Amino acid sequence: MHHADPQREALRLRTLATLRDVPDFPRPGIVFKDITPVLGDAALLRDVIAAMVAPWLGEDITHVAGIESRGFIFGVPVALALGAGFIPIRKPGKLPWRTMSQDYALEYGTDRLEMHIDACPSPSRVLVVDDVLATGGTAGAACQLIARLGGDVVGCSFLLAIPVLKGRARLDGCRLETFIEV
Amino acid sequence: MHHADPQREALRLRTLATLRDVPDFPRPGIVFKDITPVLGDAALLRDVIAAMVAPWLGEDITHVAGIESRGFIFGVPVALALGAGFIPIRKPGKLPWRTMSQDYALEYGTDRLEMHIDACPSPSRVLVVDDVLATGGTAGAACQLIARLGGDVVGCSFLLAIPVLKGRARLDGCRLETFIEV
Repeated sequence: MHHADPQREALRLRTLATLRDVPDFPRPGIVFKDITPVLGDAALLRDVIAAMVAPWLGEDITHVAGIESRGFIFGVPVALALGAGFIPIRKPGKLPWRTMSQDYALEYGTDRLEMHIDACPSPSRVLVVDDVLATGGTAGAACQLIARLGGDVVGCSFLLAIPVLKGRARLDGCRLETFIEV
Repeated sequence: MHHADPQREALRLRTLATLRDVPDFPRPGIVFKDITPVLGDAALLRDVIAAMVAPWLGEDITHVAGIESRGFIFGVPVALALGAGFIPIRKPGKLPWRTMSQDYALEYGTDRLEMHIDACPSPSRVLVVDDVLATGGTAGAACQLIARLGGDVVGCSFLLAIPVLKGRARLDGCRLETFIEV
């Protein structure tokens, strides 16, 4: 966190003011933070990507892994800004070549992520990127998968975190950077 | 097409050599062009994005629309390089707010794309981005949807085109740029 930086704090407020609250999505009782107004504002998009990149400069990140599909939106520009390659982490059946998969728990049932088995050439220093840190289940599975494929997980970067869902606890021991907490 | 540019031609050959052919994906008899080795190569990713951007410099693009989900991978960095905002075009039920939808024909049956109804503030000059131009059905639906929402479709940009599938015919009247034909 970099609350002492007034420019970063001003950008945080500008982003919060641009996010759109959508009640009852995807389920009744949940207020969804819609990022599309942020994406559609060219200057804000540029500044938000730069803010997500800043904490990882000098960390020798070789690859950024983005989690399907909103993680692709932020992961690729972060990769380009860090001079890194991009690894898509996808839902089952989407990657065409040989994959390794990792299950993770949902509120009800389980879900699964997949990566190509050659996604992390040795040595890889990998940053995981997604839009929102909620319970941390998806990001945790991504980190496990990267480690099983021989990659070194340097940390995780999110645009938003929802602290009440305690995602940090599930990603214990991993450096986390979240630009905004809601 | 810019076949006369030797640097661009060298990049094209480098990209072709890096793409991975995956037989029988997603269905028997289809050879899928796997882009993940291109994404994972930091220098190649940077150069390929620059090649997709080059034809549209000076076109005053205000928004880049990327089609879920591989279109997100290329669309966001193209948007940033053009100083444009990004619009996600998504599969049904994924966008949280009010949407307009467009059906399009598949080989068997139909599929549907959605956009937020406020995605194209007037005036918008929109570039559609996706990874592959196949039959043109998806990109055609994207263009229709953008036009219905008041946007001006400036053109479509693809990393790869498969000319045998005649996608250009379905996008008649729209400026198309494809970096590689396979």
